[in-house]
Amino acid sequence: MSEPHNRLRLVRAGIDTYQQPVVYMHRDCHVCRSEGFTALTRVLARSGDREVIATLNVVVDDHLALNVAALSEAAWQVLKPDPDAWATFSHAEPPASAAALRAKVFGQRLDDTDFLALMQDAVANRLSDIELTAFVTACAGDRLDNDETIALTKAMLAVGERIEWGGGPVLDKHCVGGLPGNRTTPIVVAIIAAAGHRIPKTSSRAITSPAGTADAMEVMAPVALDIDAMRRVVEREGGCIVWGGNVRLSPADDLLIRIEHPLDFDSDGQLVASVLSKKAAAGSTHALIDIPVGPTAKVRSAAAAASLEARLLVTAQALGLHLTVMRTDGAQPVGYGIGPALEARDVLSVLRNEAEAPRDLRNRALDIAGALLDAVPGAEPGKGRAQAHMLLDSGAALAKFLAICEAQGGFTEPKPAPHLRPVLANRTGRIERIDNRRLARIAKLAGAPGSAAAGIDCRVRIGNSVRSGEPLFQIHAQTPGELEYAFGYATAHPDVFEIGAAG
Amino acid sequence: MSEPHNRLRLVRAGIDTYQQPVVYMHRDCHVCRSEGFTALTRVLARSGDREVIATLNVVVDDHLALNVAALSEAAWQVLKPDPDAWATFSHAEPPASAAALRAKVFGQRLDDTDFLALMQDAVANRLSDIELTAFVTACAGDRLDNDETIALTKAMLAVGERIEWGGGPVLDKHCVGGLPGNRTTPIVVAIIAAAGHRIPKTSSRAITSPAGTADAMEVMAPVALDIDAMRRVVEREGGCIVWGGNVRLSPADDLLIRIEHPLDFDSDGQLVASVLSKKAAAGSTHALIDIPVGPTAKVRSAAAAASLEARLLVTAQALGLHLTVMRTDGAQPVGYGIGPALEARDVLSVLRNEAEAPRDLRNRALDIAGALLDAVPGAEPGKGRAQAHMLLDSGAALAKFLAICEAQGGFTEPKPAPHLRPVLANRTGRIERIDNRRLARIAKLAGAPGSAAAGIDCRVRIGNSVRSGEPLFQIHAQTPGELEYAFGYATAHPDVFEIGAAG
Repeated sequence: MSEPHNRLRLVRAGIDTYQQPVVYMHRDCHVCRSEGFTALTRVLARSGDREVIATLNVVVDDHLALNVAALSEAAWQVLKPDPDAWATFSHAEPPASAAALRAKVFGQRLDDTDFLALMQDAVANRLSDIELTAFVTACAGDRLDNDETIALTKAMLAVGERIEWGGGPVLDKHCVGGLPGNRTTPIVVAIIAAAGHRIPKTSSRAITSPAGTADAMEVMAPVALDIDAMRRVVEREGGCIVWGGNVRLSPADDLLIRIEHPLDFDSDGQLVASVLSKKAAAGSTHALIDIPVGPTAKVRSAAAAASLEARLLVTAQALGLHLTVMRTDGAQPVGYGIGPALEARDVLSVLRNEAEAPRDLRNRALDIAGALLDAVPGAEPGKGRAQAHMLLDSGAALAKFLAICEAQGGFTEPKPAPHLRPVLANRTGRIERIDNRRLARIAKLAGAPGSAAAGIDCRVRIGNSVRSGEPLFQIHAQTPGELEYAFGYATAHPDVFEIGAAG
Repeated sequence: MSEPHNRLRLVRAGIDTYQQPVVYMHRDCHVCRSEGFTALTRVLARSGDREVIATLNVVVDDHLALNVAALSEAAWQVLKPDPDAWATFSHAEPPASAAALRAKVFGQRLDDTDFLALMQDAVANRLSDIELTAFVTACAGDRLDNDETIALTKAMLAVGERIEWGGGPVLDKHCVGGLPGNRTTPIVVAIIAAAGHRIPKTSSRAITSPAGTADAMEVMAPVALDIDAMRRVVEREGGCIVWGGNVRLSPADDLLIRIEHPLDFDSDGQLVASVLSKKAAAGSTHALIDIPVGPTAKVRSAAAAASLEARLLVTAQALGLHLTVMRTDGAQPVGYGIGPALEARDVLSVLRNEAEAPRDLRNRALDIAGALLDAVPGAEPGKGRAQAHMLLDSGAALAKFLAICEAQGGFTEPKPAPHLRPVLANRTGRIERIDNRRLARIAKLAGAPGSAAAGIDCRVRIGNSVRSGEPLFQIHAQTPGELEYAFGYATAHPDVFEIGAAG
């Protein structure tokens, strides 16, 4: 049926609604009237042989003509209309997975078929943000058991691409975030690739943090490679560090994360499905998960870490993925810098074996690389760390890192920020605790990650003694306004560093 | 702090996003850049002494200048900016109730304080649609116990206005929807007011159904009265039937319903809080809840009805509200008409004691009015139905109804639709079942409730015998296109009426 009464010409609204397709129609247009559409109606738009389900926003003034429908960027990308193309509009039927969603919300267990239907509808944009949120919430806490976690992981894997690397081990690592500055990835990838192994690493940009690995890496080399370019880099150098957003290895995960982050939900089931679906999609055979544990890290207790570890291991086994889990100290930042360029500087400092390189970052990178080398089939157990050490000290890891940067498009030295200001201790004593979350917030107020050079340079550590008036950290910013903004917040929250009695 | 770097001039976007405040900024504007705003960022906008938290949509073409921020209708109504007013923009802090929301999502019980904080943030527009959805989902199924239901109801009541009527009983009724055509309310209000009691009734418009009571009533009299106008009508005539949307008796409920409806969640706890918070806010002292039970009604089994009834009674008691619950047959539509004008016609036919008036609608209205009259303090038990009968038969109820219409702005006789087409039985036999949901869908495709005259006129009932080729119902529509659209759906779904072996 293509009744003229439900047709409108398509125009581009030029509005980015972050993945959710939105269609804008005038309240008085003949389609709204004949179809009974009102604001937030789920509308099926068909143009040529393409279709998209979009949420309706109703235009009430004369910015939009009566005979057109405007599409948000997400809707435009799906329909890809020709100039002057028309679309027909109708009420969207409930998605096929609506019954499964409802069952989960009402506390029932779902099986493989249910999760597959849900993930298929998700990546086909047939679920509204409201429906995705209901799914995420219904799976939060302990509402996914192990079997459901495995089913969800497999479903997320099934609806995306999966890279095949041919035979042989493919290594990978991942850190369950929450620790500012913990930028081990570029160092680990350089060591593993220098050892002759394959490690095709995709990383995320910051979502709520001052820098993701992709942001820090982008200071030194291009990271927005597509899947073919990534494959060429890995075939040439053994490793890469690219932004996962362009590779889209787990598109279902990208959609769910977009809902989970503003809610700050970090349930084990969803975290495991998110991490392991991406590893498996990347074609990994041997992966290491770093879980920093600390009072202001993402995982806050040993019990929480143990529960997460168990869930990771059982799910990895079901996927045929060899997994090593490493729990690390998450009490304070790692390295000196927090922010893309400052973290990149630390990475280079470690790779260059500079005397002032942050030892905590260096040691963590060696621990992780060593454990990964131990996990490779045929490796002599316990020799991995010594091998990693040798590859780093010899300059082989640095050479490999620079070669990877070249293969990704060329190396660039990080540039410092033009505006600096220290934040001073307001008493003399010993550093007892550091609030990672507040520290990250200051770095963000200073402009990170939007301004790559912005962030924090912090050299004091728990156990260090400081004197009143000595600097606790430096704020780096691109503009004086941002510098003052971050400084204002830092001075209003002197408890970011808890300073005990003078030691 | 009012840094110039986070100021933009305000313009009206003219976009209706259905209550969720949205702000539109150009991707390259200085505020997006300096504050690090991206699509879906939660933004705090301050202008003069007003503020609003809005969701950011990013404009990527030149429709929007770099020095302005455009506000959706919901955001514009809150800020009410003067011409050429500016606003400052910053990242919104998480709402005060974020911890309570998170606790509920993770399965903890909430107390009075938690629910109050959540409802305060909801009505102040400090919760995004994603947060509201998480709350609704976390409370779905059996995840609210009786104490939490009571706490949520009280919180919803506390954040809205409450009408005081002075002393004496204030009566009310409500039907837990799902039954097409069940338009008893205008008849019940007329009888109760004719009996000399006070019954200030607010009703909803259709959200997913072909007609709400407010839609049917609006065919006969204005219903968009504000709270002062409503009070004047009730003081003059004892009763009213007005649209609740303009009275905004439970603004928190309006926000939650907006999320619950697209999800089709109907958990007991939320349903009870929604219904009873509105009754208490309206100042009711004695209310009756009609629960139609049937396989395609909202409440599908006797067990589900019993559970809902128990929850309603315990919550009403906690609020000091006298409640009568009546379970009714929900197997098939009530009255002949489905759609605003067709239902209004049935109501008038009953009030006018016409010979062809639908007996099922008349009997239900008498049952409900009788039970309400029995519940009034000092009433002689069991005499209510006879009194209701007398008031209806004598014409007193009709006179009162017309007087209420006059007080609300004037009575209008419903107008029939210009286009009709019968849907015929495709076999001879006895009507075994009627699918209320599909029938409602046909009425909506015909144009109800947007076109008031559109809908369905259906005179066959379960147990009736029909012959192949006889009409099952008539479709009424305002345009030939809608008539064909609804007819096409009806013929594609002949199982709306299940016709058994010829009886």
